[in-house]
Amino acid sequence: RAAAVGIEKEEMLASTPDSLLREQSSESEGIRGRFERIIRDAQNRIVAAVEEEDGEGKFREDAWARPGGGGGVSRVMQGGKVWEKAGVGVSVVYGTMPPEAYRAAKGNNSVNGASNGASGGVPFFAAGISSVMHPRNPFAPTMHFNYRYFETEEWNGIPGQWWFGGGTDITPSYVDEEDMRHFHGIYKRVCDNHDPAYYPKFKQWADDYFLCKHRNQRRGLGGIFFDDLNDRPQDEILAFSTEALGAVTESYLPLVQKHKNDPFTEQQKEWQQMRRGLYVEYNLVYDRGTTFGLKTAGRIESILMSLPLTARWEYCPPVDPTSPEAELVDACTNPRTWV
Amino acid sequence: RAAAVGIEKEEMLASTPDSLLREQSSESEGIRGRFERIIRDAQNRIVAAVEEEDGEGKFREDAWARPGGGGGVSRVMQGGKVWEKAGVGVSVVYGTMPPEAYRAAKGNNSVNGASNGASGGVPFFAAGISSVMHPRNPFAPTMHFNYRYFETEEWNGIPGQWWFGGGTDITPSYVDEEDMRHFHGIYKRVCDNHDPAYYPKFKQWADDYFLCKHRNQRRGLGGIFFDDLNDRPQDEILAFSTEALGAVTESYLPLVQKHKNDPFTEQQKEWQQMRRGLYVEYNLVYDRGTTFGLKTAGRIESILMSLPLTARWEYCPPVDPTSPEAELVDACTNPRTWV
Repeated sequence: RAAAVGIEKEEMLASTPDSLLREQSSESEGIRGRFERIIRDAQNRIVAAVEEEDGEGKFREDAWARPGGGGGVSRVMQGGKVWEKAGVGVSVVYGTMPPEAYRAAKGNNSVNGASNGASGGVPFFAAGISSVMHPRNPFAPTMHFNYRYFETEEWNGIPGQWWFGGGTDITPSYVDEEDMRHFHGIYKRVCDNHDPAYYPKFKQWADDYFLCKHRNQRRGLGGIFFDDLNDRPQDEILAFSTEALGAVTESYLPLVQKHKNDPFTEQQKEWQQMRRGLYVEYNLVYDRGTTFGLKTAGRIESILMSLPLTARWEYCPPVDPTSPEAELVDACTNPRTWV
Repeated sequence: RAAAVGIEKEEMLASTPDSLLREQSSESEGIRGRFERIIRDAQNRIVAAVEEEDGEGKFREDAWARPGGGGGVSRVMQGGKVWEKAGVGVSVVYGTMPPEAYRAAKGNNSVNGASNGASGGVPFFAAGISSVMHPRNPFAPTMHFNYRYFETEEWNGIPGQWWFGGGTDITPSYVDEEDMRHFHGIYKRVCDNHDPAYYPKFKQWADDYFLCKHRNQRRGLGGIFFDDLNDRPQDEILAFSTEALGAVTESYLPLVQKHKNDPFTEQQKEWQQMRRGLYVEYNLVYDRGTTFGLKTAGRIESILMSLPLTARWEYCPPVDPTSPEAELVDACTNPRTWV
């Protein structure tokens, strides 16, 4: 039944293919092929760095293909020494998607141009890398990144489009200002290399995007986020995306290294678990990638690998207004300028 | 910001009012007042029965009011001996709601009749009781019920409407056929007292409604569900709703009593936690009441009190196809006839 909603059921592959594009395709020389190589290389590099930092955990690899075309490579570490769960997924998919999935991917506005009688699937190509890492220690932050390239073809009078999207954001359970200056500082430097307007704009965008509206609280302390980016030549946006993706290990791993052995109490661990509850709420209710994936009946294990291993929901948990927990809530409610 | 989306922020009350309807209102004699008394009485009765069965845990009570009118009484037990978390909430709210909340409450179809330029809030009245109970023991099932009465007034050419909705459904982590015959048998009896067509129709409706489309699996083993019910006089549907609500303790408590002391392994507890993960997915992605609540920025602690205390998401958890865990997945995938 679910499969009927959109995209056909995936099949698991015995080995990981060199490319997820169509066989013997001329696409490998173009933007599609270049973007695939960038995200596949980044996946290899990031997984190796995280395994090294963890010291014990290993990522398992699952490659899958869609009958309609394309597929993905999911790499997940569960039960590591430092990370409870960490996933880095790459997917390159194409075919047609239901209009409601197009709305989830693109926002409502551009889709409303279609006449009410519009029917049939929207032809699309989407390639992206996406990752969430949840450490055990409540003082070591969760980190998420996602960089993607999207194309649609003409559909019911809406012209074909291409755009880039992505970002990296950090979700600590406690505020460490030095950590935040380091993390945001890296992305400000990357942005400034391409356009001095990028960091303020994309920092604000992350503060807006990662808001859990129903709690009037962001899930974490932001970073950068951008979407629908197509206002300059593809090569320039590709270079920016590549550099931001390349900065992930430098921005994140030092924070985990610093905190992975911090002592903590049972209460602090429970606080982290409740923040993970909010993370789950955000991903299932608001996150574009997740809601797009759920609507297109993509590989569910890959879509939901972003969810933490465990989460907690207490009714009306008491928070002392002078506590470090309250400071985190304040920083998630009133976004700060870190750099 | 969230408050701007729809309904104004609630305030907590020092004591629980006798009625949540407008003061000095003539409504108390009508359907609104009768329905409020029924759900308030049921809340008292069910809470008392659950406390008695638990033996240790006590429900705390929070009463709240909305500046726009109405309010609610939330009663939550956390950390009981038998139940990890159990909540029974009553709310009586009225005012105007955003069109997107109307869509969530009523389904899309009836709202599409409004012209595209339709604006302003939809005047509504909604009263309901809603509950989820999560026991500790993985062999004792989670249970949910919700019974509600809804009215809208004329809005942008759509005539005012009234309807009843509700149901009770059961979510075990393991299949116990005797339990299911008991639980479904009670609701078949209640339905048959009102219309022999009700049980087959509402059992099927529950099987359809509680489907996690993205996993092609129901969250549990069903029960009854109905919505938009307005095909006979209000009194008759009120009598049916009242009897179904009255059957909750008889249908559920014997199952908990039977299993609350069953021995279990750590693996069985983890399996229960993963089924709770699916429960969270269902509530945040599909459940009408939750999505309505999130969109109208209602009292978030009341809306999310249905979530379990803890949940778990493993990547690709292995399930032996001959195991009791696989049998539960099969029963959630291919709904069975229990009575």
